[in-house]
Amino acid sequence: MDKRIAVIGSGNVAEALCRALREASCPPVQVFARNPLRGCIVAETAGCPFENEAERLAEADIYLLAVSDRAIREVSERLDFGNAVVAHTSGSCGSDELSPKVRRRGVFYPLQTFTAGRRVNFREVPLFVEADDEKTREEIGELARKLSDTVLSSDPVLRRRLHVAAVFVCNFVNHLYVTGESIMREAGLDWEILKPLIRETTAKMLESPSPLPLQTGPAVREDLPTLEKHRELLRDEPHLLEIYDLLTRSIIASKKKK
Amino acid sequence: MDKRIAVIGSGNVAEALCRALREASCPPVQVFARNPLRGCIVAETAGCPFENEAERLAEADIYLLAVSDRAIREVSERLDFGNAVVAHTSGSCGSDELSPKVRRRGVFYPLQTFTAGRRVNFREVPLFVEADDEKTREEIGELARKLSDTVLSSDPVLRRRLHVAAVFVCNFVNHLYVTGESIMREAGLDWEILKPLIRETTAKMLESPSPLPLQTGPAVREDLPTLEKHRELLRDEPHLLEIYDLLTRSIIASKKKK
Repeated sequence: MDKRIAVIGSGNVAEALCRALREASCPPVQVFARNPLRGCIVAETAGCPFENEAERLAEADIYLLAVSDRAIREVSERLDFGNAVVAHTSGSCGSDELSPKVRRRGVFYPLQTFTAGRRVNFREVPLFVEADDEKTREEIGELARKLSDTVLSSDPVLRRRLHVAAVFVCNFVNHLYVTGESIMREAGLDWEILKPLIRETTAKMLESPSPLPLQTGPAVREDLPTLEKHRELLRDEPHLLEIYDLLTRSIIASKKKK
Repeated sequence: MDKRIAVIGSGNVAEALCRALREASCPPVQVFARNPLRGCIVAETAGCPFENEAERLAEADIYLLAVSDRAIREVSERLDFGNAVVAHTSGSCGSDELSPKVRRRGVFYPLQTFTAGRRVNFREVPLFVEADDEKTREEIGELARKLSDTVLSSDPVLRRRLHVAAVFVCNFVNHLYVTGESIMREAGLDWEILKPLIRETTAKMLESPSPLPLQTGPAVREDLPTLEKHRELLRDEPHLLEIYDLLTRSIIASKKKK
């Protein structure tokens, strides 16, 4: 028989999970969240009822706890899950972040960036599964395989490494886009002009087995006159200059290691 | 009458220009380069003859000098261009990097990353045009508009700012991919696992008017426990920790500015 799933939380991860569950023909039995406004939107995505009173938490076989890291402990303390499996979706917390009174604890970590209202192909999202015991892990894994083609067993250290790698290639990359936008704005130039370059940089990398041989630019060429001209230009923005210098040194160092 | 174009150089920019010229039905009259092996490949892309002896440089109306920054001066000294227009393709040199004996000097800078053998849609590549005099600028601009839908007049300072912005969103972004790959490899994980995340991060940004509201991750949330866990994990890689700390601080600072 199909497991009954309930989703707890109303953020972007909860929304993406609800959409994925519905599309995999196992819609959640309930969306439970503190925030009724977002909660109702997410429940509509899931096609299931919304609830925010602890005593009306639906009975389920697996509860997916898609709340912020700092809320995991408190929410798992407060609710009564009986003998059901409870898995949080955090990249950096262990299953022991869940209250010790939860009997079957696990982790269900999707390695993706989710945005409200934005559709991703969940079958391509790598899912990392952990649990305190083998049976629980097996049940979480079974659910994961319904949603994604890439399901992997992990452990807290591995998952934390993954999360750090994700910070570099997602959060930090986006921040470099932010700095690029600010340099363009300062120069009175339309930020859109950079987009074909950004599109090609990433497209090229996605088709390549490794980004290392794709490195271009003055740093990897150790083109000192150009590096100096750039540093001169960033003289009045010490905080951008600091990033420029550090990443330039790092590119040169990677090249030597190769 | 159509202008006769000659391309000097055999690198990735020369190759992309040759392909674009041919596709715009104005194939170059000659590819001139030092390296006969690459030169012949590029000439084949262009569908024109290759040459590497100075006295056999073809007569043309516009010479596009797609050579490395440090070769611009020497190559433009050595060759005899008569009264033709000579434009280099560098992002960081002025037209005065061309030999003073060149009578009609200019710049033809494509804001894109080019890779040997890889096709880009040149009509989407922003081209920045400069020249010592108005007539020369007009002739370079006319050629540029044949190849691209985005042709802009620039000046050396503006172009240098553009080039710096390009370094942040292209070269530095690729370097973050390199660091992501190295973290995955150290953890014994397949780098391919990160690709759906990278694809989505950039796709989301390309569809958005600004990357700033898209910033996610522990830094923008000022999620100190997670930041500390990540720092702990990078303890043995001081050079990655330095990047982690600097970009984290920079994300927090951008948020406060907003």
